[in-house]
Amino acid sequence: MPATGSETTPSVMDEPATYSDAVASSSDEECTAISAKAFDSTHPTTATFQSYATEKDHGEFFRDCLELLVKSAVFEATKRDRKVLDFQNPQVLPSKFDFELRDAPSTHKDLIRILKDTVQYSVKTGHPYFVNQLFSSVDPYGLVGQWLTDALNSSVYTYEVSPVFSIMEEIVLREMRKIVGYKNGDGDGIFCPGGSIANGYAISCARHKFFPEIKTKGNSCVGRLVIFSSDQSHYSITKLASFVGIGSDNVYAIKSNRKGKMDAQHLRQEIQRALSESAVPFMVCATAGTTVFGAFDPIDEIADICKEYNLWLHVDAAWGGGALMSRKYRHLMKSIERSDSVTWNPHKLLSAPQQCSTLLIRHTGILSEAHGTQAAYLFQKDKFYDTSYDTGDKHIQCGRRADVFKFWFMWKAKGTTGLEKHIDKVFENSKYFLELVKNRTGFELLLEEPECTNVCFWYIPPSLRKLSKSLPEYNEKLHKVAPKIKERMMKAGNMMITYQAQKDYPNFFRIVFQSSGLEKSDMRYFVEQIEKMGQDL
Amino acid sequence: MPATGSETTPSVMDEPATYSDAVASSSDEECTAISAKAFDSTHPTTATFQSYATEKDHGEFFRDCLELLVKSAVFEATKRDRKVLDFQNPQVLPSKFDFELRDAPSTHKDLIRILKDTVQYSVKTGHPYFVNQLFSSVDPYGLVGQWLTDALNSSVYTYEVSPVFSIMEEIVLREMRKIVGYKNGDGDGIFCPGGSIANGYAISCARHKFFPEIKTKGNSCVGRLVIFSSDQSHYSITKLASFVGIGSDNVYAIKSNRKGKMDAQHLRQEIQRALSESAVPFMVCATAGTTVFGAFDPIDEIADICKEYNLWLHVDAAWGGGALMSRKYRHLMKSIERSDSVTWNPHKLLSAPQQCSTLLIRHTGILSEAHGTQAAYLFQKDKFYDTSYDTGDKHIQCGRRADVFKFWFMWKAKGTTGLEKHIDKVFENSKYFLELVKNRTGFELLLEEPECTNVCFWYIPPSLRKLSKSLPEYNEKLHKVAPKIKERMMKAGNMMITYQAQKDYPNFFRIVFQSSGLEKSDMRYFVEQIEKMGQDL
Repeated sequence: MPATGSETTPSVMDEPATYSDAVASSSDEECTAISAKAFDSTHPTTATFQSYATEKDHGEFFRDCLELLVKSAVFEATKRDRKVLDFQNPQVLPSKFDFELRDAPSTHKDLIRILKDTVQYSVKTGHPYFVNQLFSSVDPYGLVGQWLTDALNSSVYTYEVSPVFSIMEEIVLREMRKIVGYKNGDGDGIFCPGGSIANGYAISCARHKFFPEIKTKGNSCVGRLVIFSSDQSHYSITKLASFVGIGSDNVYAIKSNRKGKMDAQHLRQEIQRALSESAVPFMVCATAGTTVFGAFDPIDEIADICKEYNLWLHVDAAWGGGALMSRKYRHLMKSIERSDSVTWNPHKLLSAPQQCSTLLIRHTGILSEAHGTQAAYLFQKDKFYDTSYDTGDKHIQCGRRADVFKFWFMWKAKGTTGLEKHIDKVFENSKYFLELVKNRTGFELLLEEPECTNVCFWYIPPSLRKLSKSLPEYNEKLHKVAPKIKERMMKAGNMMITYQAQKDYPNFFRIVFQSSGLEKSDMRYFVEQIEKMGQDL
Repeated sequence: MPATGSETTPSVMDEPATYSDAVASSSDEECTAISAKAFDSTHPTTATFQSYATEKDHGEFFRDCLELLVKSAVFEATKRDRKVLDFQNPQVLPSKFDFELRDAPSTHKDLIRILKDTVQYSVKTGHPYFVNQLFSSVDPYGLVGQWLTDALNSSVYTYEVSPVFSIMEEIVLREMRKIVGYKNGDGDGIFCPGGSIANGYAISCARHKFFPEIKTKGNSCVGRLVIFSSDQSHYSITKLASFVGIGSDNVYAIKSNRKGKMDAQHLRQEIQRALSESAVPFMVCATAGTTVFGAFDPIDEIADICKEYNLWLHVDAAWGGGALMSRKYRHLMKSIERSDSVTWNPHKLLSAPQQCSTLLIRHTGILSEAHGTQAAYLFQKDKFYDTSYDTGDKHIQCGRRADVFKFWFMWKAKGTTGLEKHIDKVFENSKYFLELVKNRTGFELLLEEPECTNVCFWYIPPSLRKLSKSLPEYNEKLHKVAPKIKERMMKAGNMMITYQAQKDYPNFFRIVFQSSGLEKSDMRYFVEQIEKMGQDL
């Protein structure tokens, strides 16, 4: 635990021992500012209280911190011979990491140690062997982009405050709409904090398109609204449907086939059911790259049905969207240009740092119509420049990070062809892994031909291989294998890969490829490690 | 404009000239991956396509970028003798800044120039003379915290992926609830991307408390819900009320007094009106530090009314909340512990980098109850550690940045006493500014005694001083003064301060103090610059 800088704590003896005590005991009248002795800025090795950085007080500190970051949190932390994590149980970690907030300031030396500890006990999501989530890797250009974004600390609501990023957002969004296939890239769009919220915006826009009166009057002015999405769609559809007052029961779950793709015939039946109940269907959420199976819903068929029933077609391509950058793989989202809106997270398949999520919309102006409130204190109309560049009012956020920059900078760095190359590489990796385990003893694929770069499989330990699959205990036993191997890998720190049960299947692994820094040897490593950790189960 | 690295573009002549052309013209069958020549990784001065950083390929680049960032975006950009901004009209900026996305990759040299240009044309929000918004300054410890957060690229949904930050969030939130005054710091809370969304969560929780069936059935299963907030409350209350399906008409605007404080008697009348309309009042949003006037609503009186009518009391202290850290100023929010929830943005008065917003709730568990969907693929219950540490399901976001770290790190650096010192300093600054303009010719205060650190005032140019205030043209002319001075300051780049009209007042300036790096001489600078820019109007 750090020295808490007791020599710099207030020396006035009759003051309460701690800030918290003071707050608890003081009345308004008793309040006095703490002794200034605690903040002697002539001692530059102790943290200053001012929210202002100077070369004199922080130059050396910044350089020490950045050297540490680059070395230990980026280059060292992502080396293959280093651990992905140093796992500590949640009950134990507080005894190893100094979480406590104290009254007194820290020294710069203490702070450097704190940074080291934070790196040590954090999961290295940029490590090649972190294949656990739909994000991973540390993109070098994305990271530099983030660092600059932080240093500039902009808020993208007005051109006045954020000129470069305001224009940049519109340029990147237009380019993405072009790639989706919306005519001339026209339409609307936003960067927002995560795909879940992007899906929420999509619901809000769809609702506004058909029932603009809800903005002022609320949902209760129309009938029971109904959304359709597959039983494999992301949980955010249901979560956000609840949040926006539609209710989770009113998200009708459409069956998916064995591959996890939406059954368009069942969609049609469910729309008819909703109509027969006198409910108000207004939106279908298709998924392009489901979270677990990586399935792509049949957009063309769904678009036909949406046209027939006049429903908004949203495509949640948060995960799969990156494949649009590849001439080889964009066919997976054939007819996506027929959609009304698309969620596409560059922080997933394209490996931009978190968070970088977009909602792209075919209809111009709908975001402002649905969400604008024209706050006079921020979106003044008598500014001296063209205020159509003040785009903040289309968001439900007010202050907002410039998540565009890291992605634009990556794009600038790699070029469109580089982003394509990245996508092709991650698909290539997943296909190599697939071939590796296809006929390998002890491995069983859930799907022989997954469509995206997540691969679902079981590891069958030797003890189970002799058991008949028809025995009920087979699935019971298999269900416990993945959690056990996961525990072992977390404790060893040698890799991270997630597991889950789904569709009545017992627990299976889902390995996710979206780092183009992985090589074939890494695929072999994953397979061998799993065998090693599971052979005695 | 940069060299676009034409020597590295694909050389296969019969390929389409650009990626976009190729996408437009190619059928699925024609799709071919781009020539690998474009990505010759033996040339480390050209950007690599892999989402993986290595010392060999990026070590020098990182260090060059970081040196540039620290020097030009932090230390130089915030010097008083430098400009706050280099203003370019939105129509002109694209001719000065190379926004265009191209097919080919860039060289590291190009990228460094792009970073320089981004700094040059961005507003330096960390500059002492940026007093334009409710955020400003670059906190040195907050910034280092952001940089590490980025390098680790964590997502705070499970302990498994984000052990340090998961625990840290709970510790900081508990500490903040203690400071609010909730018993033992018990209750619930989240970090979320901005105060607007925090207010949305508050509405959602209040709704869930009284009508849990809305989560599944939607708003239409209850009557017309009504929220009350003052006519000075932040626009996000209305915006989020629309978003969550309650409707902006159902946010009843309560009158505020001359100081901008909610009129509790009018609140009572409006509640009774709603009841007489058979609507369903369920929530009052008080404001602690209004956006423009900096007014604090009378929480105690409002809490009495909420108790009487059984309404959820939310306090939007996004702006004013930081004052709770000061024994001298926390009385402004007297009785805040009687609230059900509080929005408090450390990125405002406490000067944490953006974004750092919290919602603090007195009721334990309500966030999960209102928003949880128990997604089986992420929140597995058969993990080997205590999964109560997997806190992600209480959010409407799935992936989520670790916004806690920068604030925790600042707190650790400065100590609670340092944060208090910061708050006391910014109040002191605002009081000094107030004294400076109080009796100064040409300045007129909107409020003689503003409660928070934003000060609203008019500058009256000499030409207007002889005019009678009762003449209609007086206000017409005065209305044009602030926009004109603002235009001049933006073009000169010497400072940024915002203006707006409000409550039938003609345009007035609102100067905002939340940088504890400002000195008295800076206050004098602001006054003198305004006089200089406005004297001939």
